[in-house]
Amino acid sequence: MTGLSHFDAQGQAHMVDVSAKPVTDRVAVAEGHVVMTPETLAHVTAGTAKKGDVLGIARVAAIMGAKRTSDLIPLCHPLPITKVSVELTPDASLPGVRIEATVKTSGQTGVEMEALTAVTTAALTIYDMLKAVEKSMRIEGIRVVLKDGGKSGRYEVTR
Amino acid sequence: MTGLSHFDAQGQAHMVDVSAKPVTDRVAVAEGHVVMTPETLAHVTAGTAKKGDVLGIARVAAIMGAKRTSDLIPLCHPLPITKVSVELTPDASLPGVRIEATVKTSGQTGVEMEALTAVTTAALTIYDMLKAVEKSMRIEGIRVVLKDGGKSGRYEVTR
Amino acid sequence: MTGLSHFDAQGQAHMVDVSAKPVTDRVAVAEGHVVMTPETLAHVTAGTAKKGDVLGIARVAAIMGAKRTSDLIPLCHPLPITKVSVELTPDASLPGVRIEATVKTSGQTGVEMEALTAVTTAALTIYDMLKAVEKSMRIEGIRVVLKDGGKSGRYEVTR
Amino acid sequence: MTGLSHFDAQGQAHMVDVSAKPVTDRVAVAEGHVVMTPETLAHVTAGTAKKGDVLGIARVAAIMGAKRTSDLIPLCHPLPITKVSVELTPDASLPGVRIEATVKTSGQTGVEMEALTAVTTAALTIYDMLKAVEKSMRIEGIRVVLKDGGKSGRYEVTR
Amino acid sequence: MTGLSHFDAQGQAHMVDVSAKPVTDRVAVAEGHVVMTPETLAHVTAGTAKKGDVLGIARVAAIMGAKRTSDLIPLCHPLPITKVSVELTPDASLPGVRIEATVKTSGQTGVEMEALTAVTTAALTIYDMLKAVEKSMRIEGIRVVLKDGGKSGRYEVTR
Amino acid sequence: MTGLSHFDAQGQAHMVDVSAKPVTDRVAVAEGHVVMTPETLAHVTAGTAKKGDVLGIARVAAIMGAKRTSDLIPLCHPLPITKVSVELTPDASLPGVRIEATVKTSGQTGVEMEALTAVTTAALTIYDMLKAVEKSMRIEGIRVVLKDGGKSGRYEVTR
Repeated sequence: MTGLSHFDAQGQAHMVDVSAKPVTDRVAVAEGHVVMTPETLAHVTAGTAKKGDVLGIARVAAIMGAKRTSDLIPLCHPLPITKVSVELTPDASLPGVRIEATVKTSGQTGVEMEALTAVTTAALTIYDMLKAVEKSMRIEGIRVVLKDGGKSGRYEVTR
Repeated sequence: MTGLSHFDAQGQAHMVDVSAKPVTDRVAVAEGHVVMTPETLAHVTAGTAKKGDVLGIARVAAIMGAKRTSDLIPLCHPLPITKVSVELTPDASLPGVRIEATVKTSGQTGVEMEALTAVTTAALTIYDMLKAVEKSMRIEGIRVVLKDGGKSGRYEVTR
Repeated sequence: MTGLSHFDAQGQAHMVDVSAKPVTDRVAVAEGHVVMTPETLAHVTAGTAKKGDVLGIARVAAIMGAKRTSDLIPLCHPLPITKVSVELTPDASLPGVRIEATVKTSGQTGVEMEALTAVTTAALTIYDMLKAVEKSMRIEGIRVVLKDGGKSGRYEVTR
Repeated sequence: MTGLSHFDAQGQAHMVDVSAKPVTDRVAVAEGHVVMTPETLAHVTAGTAKKGDVLGIARVAAIMGAKRTSDLIPLCHPLPITKVSVELTPDASLPGVRIEATVKTSGQTGVEMEALTAVTTAALTIYDMLKAVEKSMRIEGIRVVLKDGGKSGRYEVTR
Repeated sequence: MTGLSHFDAQGQAHMVDVSAKPVTDRVAVAEGHVVMTPETLAHVTAGTAKKGDVLGIARVAAIMGAKRTSDLIPLCHPLPITKVSVELTPDASLPGVRIEATVKTSGQTGVEMEALTAVTTAALTIYDMLKAVEKSMRIEGIRVVLKDGGKSGRYEVTR
Repeated sequence: MTGLSHFDAQGQAHMVDVSAKPVTDRVAVAEGHVVMTPETLAHVTAGTAKKGDVLGIARVAAIMGAKRTSDLIPLCHPLPITKVSVELTPDASLPGVRIEATVKTSGQTGVEMEALTAVTTAALTIYDMLKAVEKSMRIEGIRVVLKDGGKSGRYEVTR
């Protein structure tokens, strides 16, 4: 199966050998959003301004989730993450919350899975904290928007 | 902030006291999907039929992810899960893979977070195994479609 | 060695057999504090009032730490925690931050280790977030102040 | 908020970007102690001499705890620890047990959080193993006594 | 595939639904051994008698390993373990160390995987601590010797 | 106790200081097998050919298990694994399944514990998935067959 590096010639899964790859600085940015009713969003924005800080807790969860990536994704290499930041922005036009995570490392493989895991963990945490007022929220649009630093070159989505 | 049970009267986060709630049988079903190009999907369907089993690995990751839910989501109660099953269905109309996870417990709180975590872990794992051939995949439509067994009654999405 | 239940008659460590103990509602409260300079404390109180929320992050860490107790303490039984709350109070008379954690379960053993782990995790997190401005902080006075619900009866410290 | 590196200009928590910092050899030493009655301490010293080895188990827990630091402390970087040692010394003058942990790494950030986590995990484990004979033990005096190897220079407490 | 309960009718892996099974008291005992040279075994027996306690550390690792079983084994249910004990016996006739672990729970599935995981973790830890003096050690004879408490009745190996 | 590097001069366990050792490319291979009846083995080979993929799930578990080694083995250093592959071969002559795991890293200590942990996790997972049809399976012959890359030179078993 040409192209799927996570499988060997016999089609068996393995953690790809990256030992011959150079250690380079790498960065990845991922995004996603949680869609909710305007009433639910009002709980979020009220909390951000004053108390009951939904977004603050989701940010912590996202950062911690990024560190657990190789525990969750079977064929992911463990990586010494050197930076995680997470932007959480209420957006009335969704209505909902936009999530963007940036992860850096100096390593032999990229950090897009770490960035994606940060985004999904933030989204799940937002759902968890708001589910008492709305069960119909949806998590949407999770994707990599920037990846740079490896031999495959820069990948950037036009937004 | 009325309604957000994860915050107390001062707006401080806590793990909600469920000790007075009865232990009941609970079930939750969540869904989502990963959108990809037809060429990428062909790698998945080839693997399922013969070798390089992307979906088999994603299913294992999803089941293990469900068990890690309370490690990842800060205010989630730890729960003794009694069942996890995960359906992964290639769908040429997306094109991509549809994910549906069912989780059961006998406990004092619901398992929708466990079902959602199973779905997102499956989606992340699919992304990881296919990212060598396509970086532009998107994870979409993650939501709860069924929840039953607690005092808030049955919640079911019409599909 | 009479009294040390974590050792058998040969002095070998084991996880005590609690299978014959009844499942009862249990609660424990633990406390502790972090001592710092008035200047360091000013960073905390500024953050709580407006932004840069040291205490909010320490609270999340404490709740998550309580859930990891049986992973950290070798002979601790895993327990289905039903509540965790954490009070973090700046106190100019220390000067520093007072920490109090309350944990509940319905189980066969007490939750004082979970409450103590919540307190220490909060204290370590506070240290971590403030260490850039002061290395000489000290974590002090960690102890159980209330324990109730098991066969050994109520234990409460007069404060 | 000048000085608190764990927060960005908007006061939002992040894992600090250390990717531009050089990899250097780093060491940190932390200490603390558990205060107990002379009768409780007698259980410890009897065990060390002969059987029911409280301190041996606490030492193992401390070493394992140091490896879990970045799982527990939200904004801590994962680090490849290269050494952990833990001294546990019964001290009749407390009365109680003195704990000192030394951690080394070659990395981009310091290891004082790892040393502090080792000390607190040892202290919690000592409490756990002795709580059947005394509930009133206290964990005290946890602090960093030595930190060296980063750009902020050597920090050492006079003892 | 008749008989393999971990697969559904389509051959897809799932965590078996045990929600309809009664909660009963369950016990399992597993055993195994590590074979080494007489010289290596002498290091173990010297340590047990005096210092450098290989077996004490292996016992702690085994107990902690039992608690991690459902994290390691993909389709294992999480279970509230109520007892773990581990016997480690130097045996000159192997020569080597015999390992026996006993695990109890009150739950809906058996604990033979927890007992087996305790045994293998003890064996791995013994290997780790002695590998500086002998690389050729072998881990042998790991099996379940007793299982009781579920609907499939008592299973006991004649030894 | 000459030779046991995991203990200091006082016989106390510690995580060995490897900070002065050079970072070198390292590889280790471990093996083992699970012995079962021919009828049980038929379930495995049927699954591999068509569905109910016991070996595929065991392989994923083994890879994930290798990443958890330093969490399980008390004195093991955390290591950035750069490759894991696992061969699982049905062998009618046992009858049973042969397991071989290869692990690589660039680091300061060897990866034989990671390779051994991969093998034992695969073996435990195979046991778990087949125990409904046979309780008398045995895990045998777990050992290191190749280790290379450190200062102690190449170690290879003649097979």
